[in-house]
Amino acid sequence: MDRFNVPIELSGQRFSALYSLFGGEEECLARAHDICVEQTIEFPADLVLDGDIHDLILGHIESFFSPQPGRWEAEISFAVEIAGNELTQLLNVVFGNFSLKPGVRVERLILPDKITRLFRGPRFGVTGLRERLGVRDRPLFCTALKPLGLANEALAELAYEFALGGVDMIKDDHGLADQPFSPFNQRVELCAEAVARANRETGGNCIYIPNLSAPLDRMIKKAITAREAGAGGLMVAPGLIGWDGMRMLAEHDNIALPVLCHPALSGTFTVSRENGMSHYLVFSQLPRLCGADAVIFPNYGGRFSFTADDCQSIINGAVVEMDRIAPAFPMPGGGMNEERVPEMLEFYGKDVIFLIGGALHKMGPSLVENCKRFMELFTAGQEK
Amino acid sequence: MDRFNVPIELSGQRFSALYSLFGGEEECLARAHDICVEQTIEFPADLVLDGDIHDLILGHIESFFSPQPGRWEAEISFAVEIAGNELTQLLNVVFGNFSLKPGVRVERLILPDKITRLFRGPRFGVTGLRERLGVRDRPLFCTALKPLGLANEALAELAYEFALGGVDMIKDDHGLADQPFSPFNQRVELCAEAVARANRETGGNCIYIPNLSAPLDRMIKKAITAREAGAGGLMVAPGLIGWDGMRMLAEHDNIALPVLCHPALSGTFTVSRENGMSHYLVFSQLPRLCGADAVIFPNYGGRFSFTADDCQSIINGAVVEMDRIAPAFPMPGGGMNEERVPEMLEFYGKDVIFLIGGALHKMGPSLVENCKRFMELFTAGQEK
Repeated sequence: MDRFNVPIELSGQRFSALYSLFGGEEECLARAHDICVEQTIEFPADLVLDGDIHDLILGHIESFFSPQPGRWEAEISFAVEIAGNELTQLLNVVFGNFSLKPGVRVERLILPDKITRLFRGPRFGVTGLRERLGVRDRPLFCTALKPLGLANEALAELAYEFALGGVDMIKDDHGLADQPFSPFNQRVELCAEAVARANRETGGNCIYIPNLSAPLDRMIKKAITAREAGAGGLMVAPGLIGWDGMRMLAEHDNIALPVLCHPALSGTFTVSRENGMSHYLVFSQLPRLCGADAVIFPNYGGRFSFTADDCQSIINGAVVEMDRIAPAFPMPGGGMNEERVPEMLEFYGKDVIFLIGGALHKMGPSLVENCKRFMELFTAGQEK
Repeated sequence: MDRFNVPIELSGQRFSALYSLFGGEEECLARAHDICVEQTIEFPADLVLDGDIHDLILGHIESFFSPQPGRWEAEISFAVEIAGNELTQLLNVVFGNFSLKPGVRVERLILPDKITRLFRGPRFGVTGLRERLGVRDRPLFCTALKPLGLANEALAELAYEFALGGVDMIKDDHGLADQPFSPFNQRVELCAEAVARANRETGGNCIYIPNLSAPLDRMIKKAITAREAGAGGLMVAPGLIGWDGMRMLAEHDNIALPVLCHPALSGTFTVSRENGMSHYLVFSQLPRLCGADAVIFPNYGGRFSFTADDCQSIINGAVVEMDRIAPAFPMPGGGMNEERVPEMLEFYGKDVIFLIGGALHKMGPSLVENCKRFMELFTAGQEK
């Protein structure tokens, strides 16, 4: 039909997504073609058989092959203009409607400079966070304030002891929000003050990082309040506030604090391995684009079902070259104890933040001593 | 340990989530207990064996039974204070960390007035939308402007013809964002004007509904611009802007337009039936809490894999009593043609918005006539 055969002026630049498709060859190839249509024109393809909409707007299958039996990999490219210079629309083109269809997983995005330059990315990243914390060459050590239910005074006392013990970063447990028994503003004030007091005693640079996964109409104001009260970073879960919510926060120049990305409510994307998105995309590539300086994820061998391969792919996404988007720190949490430290150092190397929560409470009566014990293990055989 | 045995003052009111757990009884019961800990204190349970944190903060298993072999249903309740009066934290308590674990699906939320009153819910709902459109007693008829790639003038011409044909609502295709070939502000102006012009000719009340799944730092401003340009509603995808983004938009009193909820990027929650969340929760109960007046979802028998049961559960979530939260319109899309209308009327009844896109272009050369043909089928045997 003529009304759908119209000229369109585009730059010719394209971005790609890499999809895994599960099933037989014929079925998977048909699905790859379906992605090209459903993710763009979402319209009877037989009404658009030629012209610019057909040639330029539909997705293109750039490659299609089977890396292993029952799985096919398709790289599909789209005109950069379709993403309209917006994260929301970029995600929509990549997986909006297709998220509703089974048997397809998005592995990663391949983005030209024309897309990556829309994003600030990590404001601090690995280098900036090391500078801020004054730690050049060893893994960073983070712990969490918990359990939920403690009053802010008790959480601040915990923070003080952790900081005395030499921990680099102390974050809220992600269950601490703005509850009546632990109101946000008071918590930030007390905990930031407790950490500053410990720093004065130790000469350290420990930072306190409140959890800010708050309603969007209050989030920026809360972030500014937290900054003014002495918070040294902010933690948000894009599963709760949206990926674009994290981007907005991280790119806000009046806040300009390190951002930790928490995986709460993002797990469903990866939990079924033949649907959704990859660990690489959900837990590091996307968070990095959205400005996360460190990405929290469940360590392998802990109480979640992540494998060492899953964790390795998250590390890869945290450091893979993406134009001027800085690398982020991988931040595995859970499943840590003294015995596992050598294995963890071997696996993660030094550019990692170890997040150790419950284990610190189970080692011995003194939190200060328990923290020191872990720090000794982290620094054994490494320069400070 | 004494430091974790502290008194906490709470109201005693609780909310619940209903979980499906997949596997054997012992394993599923252990997982239900794990939800009680992981979703609250996320802390070694043996350090909190008694006291208020144990008694009041941990989740409680209210019921546990097997409705069918291999599936267990657990209702788990939490103190309302834990949700801290925030949607973000409510979602976090229900499924934050557990989204990372396989074999658990959230079926629905059971919310006391103390939680529902935190939400405005649908501003218009079924009754308000009918009033606004002047349609008392028949199904509503919506179509979409597409394909992506058309210039705004061509989209406006389509809108004009649809409105002349008697369609009640004309929405942007969800792929229309703010692309250089279809900038948002201009599109809203041209399409709203085209629909108003048709209304003057027909005496109808057709509304134009642009797609507003935009970056959060620009979304409210765009919504106000759209309202001023004559938009009669706004469409957003919580998968792209976050559930809380939709809530913020819908509750904004300077906007106050009907809100359509689009399922883009939300599909992963339901696509693997033993993980994530139910169709009921993702496509109607949560959107309604977040203020959606109508919820778009793939119709059964179309190009997606939704079943009639899935669609029925979405209808249930759209109308189930939730205190003063108004019912929303179910809005099935896809898989529609003239022959299926009687079946669809039988299945959905009259309180439904039929979303018909591609089919209108395939029936005959005149869009106006094609729209009229569908409207005749919708009104056959019904009072206007």
